[in-house]
Amino acid sequence: MAIPRSAYPAPFNTTRASHIVWTVKDLARSRAYYVDCFGFAVSGEDKSTLYLRGMEEACHHSIVLKQSSDHPACERVGLRVYTEEDLEKAKHVFERAGLPAKWVEVPHQGRTLHVSDAVGTPLEFCATQPVMPRLVVEFKAHHGASPLRLDHFQILTPEVPKACQFYCDLGFRLSEFIAPDGTDDLMFVFLQRKGNPHDIVFANGSGPRLHHAAFSVPDAQHILQACDIASAHGFGETLESGPGRHGPGHAMFTYWRDPDGHRFELFNTHYQMMDIENEPVRWNASQLRRRPWGFPPQRSWYEEASNFSGVKSNDPVQKPNPMSLERFLVEREKA
Amino acid sequence: MAIPRSAYPAPFNTTRASHIVWTVKDLARSRAYYVDCFGFAVSGEDKSTLYLRGMEEACHHSIVLKQSSDHPACERVGLRVYTEEDLEKAKHVFERAGLPAKWVEVPHQGRTLHVSDAVGTPLEFCATQPVMPRLVVEFKAHHGASPLRLDHFQILTPEVPKACQFYCDLGFRLSEFIAPDGTDDLMFVFLQRKGNPHDIVFANGSGPRLHHAAFSVPDAQHILQACDIASAHGFGETLESGPGRHGPGHAMFTYWRDPDGHRFELFNTHYQMMDIENEPVRWNASQLRRRPWGFPPQRSWYEEASNFSGVKSNDPVQKPNPMSLERFLVEREKA
Amino acid sequence: MAIPRSAYPAPFNTTRASHIVWTVKDLARSRAYYVDCFGFAVSGEDKSTLYLRGMEEACHHSIVLKQSSDHPACERVGLRVYTEEDLEKAKHVFERAGLPAKWVEVPHQGRTLHVSDAVGTPLEFCATQPVMPRLVVEFKAHHGASPLRLDHFQILTPEVPKACQFYCDLGFRLSEFIAPDGTDDLMFVFLQRKGNPHDIVFANGSGPRLHHAAFSVPDAQHILQACDIASAHGFGETLESGPGRHGPGHAMFTYWRDPDGHRFELFNTHYQMMDIENEPVRWNASQLRRRPWGFPPQRSWYEEASNFSGVKSNDPVQKPNPMSLERFLVEREKA
Amino acid sequence: MAIPRSAYPAPFNTTRASHIVWTVKDLARSRAYYVDCFGFAVSGEDKSTLYLRGMEEACHHSIVLKQSSDHPACERVGLRVYTEEDLEKAKHVFERAGLPAKWVEVPHQGRTLHVSDAVGTPLEFCATQPVMPRLVVEFKAHHGASPLRLDHFQILTPEVPKACQFYCDLGFRLSEFIAPDGTDDLMFVFLQRKGNPHDIVFANGSGPRLHHAAFSVPDAQHILQACDIASAHGFGETLESGPGRHGPGHAMFTYWRDPDGHRFELFNTHYQMMDIENEPVRWNASQLRRRPWGFPPQRSWYEEASNFSGVKSNDPVQKPNPMSLERFLVEREKA
Repeated sequence: MAIPRSAYPAPFNTTRASHIVWTVKDLARSRAYYVDCFGFAVSGEDKSTLYLRGMEEACHHSIVLKQSSDHPACERVGLRVYTEEDLEKAKHVFERAGLPAKWVEVPHQGRTLHVSDAVGTPLEFCATQPVMPRLVVEFKAHHGASPLRLDHFQILTPEVPKACQFYCDLGFRLSEFIAPDGTDDLMFVFLQRKGNPHDIVFANGSGPRLHHAAFSVPDAQHILQACDIASAHGFGETLESGPGRHGPGHAMFTYWRDPDGHRFELFNTHYQMMDIENEPVRWNASQLRRRPWGFPPQRSWYEEASNFSGVKSNDPVQKPNPMSLERFLVEREKA
Repeated sequence: MAIPRSAYPAPFNTTRASHIVWTVKDLARSRAYYVDCFGFAVSGEDKSTLYLRGMEEACHHSIVLKQSSDHPACERVGLRVYTEEDLEKAKHVFERAGLPAKWVEVPHQGRTLHVSDAVGTPLEFCATQPVMPRLVVEFKAHHGASPLRLDHFQILTPEVPKACQFYCDLGFRLSEFIAPDGTDDLMFVFLQRKGNPHDIVFANGSGPRLHHAAFSVPDAQHILQACDIASAHGFGETLESGPGRHGPGHAMFTYWRDPDGHRFELFNTHYQMMDIENEPVRWNASQLRRRPWGFPPQRSWYEEASNFSGVKSNDPVQKPNPMSLERFLVEREKA
Repeated sequence: MAIPRSAYPAPFNTTRASHIVWTVKDLARSRAYYVDCFGFAVSGEDKSTLYLRGMEEACHHSIVLKQSSDHPACERVGLRVYTEEDLEKAKHVFERAGLPAKWVEVPHQGRTLHVSDAVGTPLEFCATQPVMPRLVVEFKAHHGASPLRLDHFQILTPEVPKACQFYCDLGFRLSEFIAPDGTDDLMFVFLQRKGNPHDIVFANGSGPRLHHAAFSVPDAQHILQACDIASAHGFGETLESGPGRHGPGHAMFTYWRDPDGHRFELFNTHYQMMDIENEPVRWNASQLRRRPWGFPPQRSWYEEASNFSGVKSNDPVQKPNPMSLERFLVEREKA
Repeated sequence: MAIPRSAYPAPFNTTRASHIVWTVKDLARSRAYYVDCFGFAVSGEDKSTLYLRGMEEACHHSIVLKQSSDHPACERVGLRVYTEEDLEKAKHVFERAGLPAKWVEVPHQGRTLHVSDAVGTPLEFCATQPVMPRLVVEFKAHHGASPLRLDHFQILTPEVPKACQFYCDLGFRLSEFIAPDGTDDLMFVFLQRKGNPHDIVFANGSGPRLHHAAFSVPDAQHILQACDIASAHGFGETLESGPGRHGPGHAMFTYWRDPDGHRFELFNTHYQMMDIENEPVRWNASQLRRRPWGFPPQRSWYEEASNFSGVKSNDPVQKPNPMSLERFLVEREKA
């Protein structure tokens, strides 16, 4: 299979990963976790919803938490387009591709389009949100990890190549990918619009499920500070993996599980990637057997993920697939 | 005067500040400064030219140093467009505006277009450069300040509003600006294409002259590390200003003067700015009288800049202009 | 004049710089400054007194602030001895030297001895304080600069050599000193008991006056964080000097002036110095003309200091003394 | 069993942990590891020996590596006393205790005393070493982890209480200890002379064996930098545990295994501990089941250690001892 090329110009202008919508069992407990401990700012809240943003964000929200008595899930992954006109174009593009798209009213967002991508991930596109004060140098408001902004999502799907083709057709660029040695079977694809390596990442696994949303922190030392402050709040054991250094993407990372099991990453920043001559960086699966440093994640990191509300998750298509990412990685863990 | 609006879509796709071309008296001395002390990587060199890049950059060069017996100057400011087709479009746009544009051959760059902007700044547009290894996690190659990448340029001109209009017409967004209290007379404009606050900045002063090129470093502590390592190499006195914290843009900064007097900034990263609802942030001149912390720069910072080769510098149009930035800032310095 | 030798064994066991007692005009204002902004912990307070400690300190206080309508002053500099027996020995040593010493009751301290040193600095010795919880990893209690602990004092006196001899006779070790080129006339002496370079420092100037008390912070980046947080609290202009790097002692520093004009230093840690073969490090005055990096302090840093309550300050003995530290440094400032 | 009290005054003045002597199979390989990768400075070397020091150390060596074809081992643990007279006193003290002590000539050390402690650890006392340049601000010499100085040793022994009593009799202070809940059976003791929590640590296990020597680094971020640079040199897999945060002692840590299997710790600094009122801090074994954050070490950390040359290692006295540290910790690891 060939590595897909990005459409240029894009059929509509997606600018960046925008926000995540999670359901939670206990909003007060989530507030204690995200706000009191990790330091997200509250942009708004009512009895059943909490809107959060990072220190650097002037948008209204990058995290939406909704109280629900159902099993905790991810409702939608939010993406930004630049203009209202891009939204209109998006609707046409999806409908032409046989993907139903509908206009919805969403609080604290401009006109919003609901659609699912080619592998079933429920998406939400909008062009605007209300403007909030940027807190990037409001240091009295900084505490916890000083999370700066949402950077990207990672989705599990048994159909990574299909997802990759879909987003490349929308003008996303493939920045890095993992494939088994000697083949181009895409196991892990890192796709971007905003000029750094990731906006949305797809990895091989039962899905669609949300593996994690990732937030940047200012400096490498905030990775450690996050661990310390989480421990001080009694959340030290919600650290699921790290600190460590990624191969693909190169960032320093930690992974956390919130009180409802939703996973998020705190990491320091990526490199800039916006020149046309930058070909996707290939990682052979065998290269991953040796990480730069640090220890393999716990099994839960490979196996657990948030379901999307009302979306059935499928197992990897060809099973037993000896190169499925999870199998491969669990074996690495044992080695 | 009204604050200009950005053209959308842009007449051609400029992606980012790309590179700077400086002439220097002694290439070996410059190499000791930029490479041995501050830690830029050498992408190529011959008897008369040195090509440098930061740790994060996969492009061939963000600094070009050319040996010359003339007074040290800046030859050109380099900007990237996305495709060769954008270059063609650019040529038409400039010619229609009465600005002569010509194709030139430049080593280690794709097809290159030479033109001057509306206030006389000599520009160089290209779509590609040869790809070099990204050193962002090649830690054996990191030393000095671990400079990551070129971020932006600052140009002095007596015609800030004209420059602002020109770049907004090219699709640049005005992220922040400084104006005297109660007026919209633009004294300082921060313009961007790549989604953070600056690619090119214009400030009121005799010009066109290059005030500085700015390079990002990984973490706040690298600002201090740069000072220490510069001192260890005998270059402690080339620190011209800082460490300090900017008002507009919010970054932590230091300013340096290289052995030829060219100024560069080392700073930590900016915020992301890519949503349509983000209006330009206004700073009243009076707000600048009180900086977050730190001390006013030396007079040289306000007065000295690199000439552009073969370009006559003009004084601010209305003089005595009691609100000229330099005057204003020198007065602040005295206060 | 010869450089004095330290008495070994010491006539009594002084262990470290202990605490500082300052009078202030408005205790609430001081609390906002030291506690809310800079992050000192409150160990105790009543209507007229505030007891503070750093994050690392298990002692009751390293700063005592007393409300007073008099001109703000330093009441005493506190030193620790190891045992009650050392206190007894101290009393005898001072009395034999003709320096009156008396037992006093001081809240939140064990038995306390009041005495003045050979150059008139009012001292307070104690062996114990009540034990308080160490907050070094109580990260919920950390904010502002995360000050760790008191490290040293600096006193101005016209009689530096006399002060040096006095403390060496008490078993203090001279770690570093500054003298004019070609002579051993001590202008600046750094004296220690605790195994890093400073517990008490004497510098040439009108005195005795307290130049500053110094507190350590965890990492170099906290130097910058202190600046940012002070600015966020509206105290950015209380930064008097720095960030910069010291010659003698080698630390990275900032100097601050509290609302009553008392000066304190926030710096990162020193080197260990506890081997007998380590001779005092000499700095020629001429070496100081070139600091590692950074800019000369404002004049106030050279000229202003806190008086000791009820102690007359004397000018340098030989005046005009062309090598007086202040003169010398002001000249350096001009150069 | 009662917690022992420290002798005061000490029978002789031990000042600090001084140096470690390790035998290695391949000196060139060790040099590549400690010098080229981790950044220790070379104070001297000949065909069979390499003398290393940290950036902060003015002493000649804190690590001595000796080429040997035998199985890699630790020859001796070095301690400093203040004066030659303290050495003489030490000899008498050991001989009175029935521990043979003999004078030996050791290169690059003053007169040296060889003795074994009460649990068989081979020690080496000296009062002086040649003075070397302190590199603490010689930033051109800094690379790798910028290791500052030796801080402490950890020894495994089945006789922790006996070791604790022995060192307390020498004037060491017990700063922290671990005991099973409800008893005072010492499983882990942290003993110090220099005023921070550790100079020598004893933990329950087969011994005497050297578990590790610990070196401080300047800032928390150097913990991460060490991981990155080790990976860049191909030594990423020599990271055995961490980054993590200690319970007792509170430092942030990593543990490494050198090419001969010797273990060392890189950690950031401890708190100051030099007041008489500071009682030993007790940690119940059960408290350790929950570390602040991070993951249990690999089994090797609990089980492997360097033998002392020519010293037979004994198993824990009472076996099966259900509270043996190793058993306890392995069980924690499983939990």
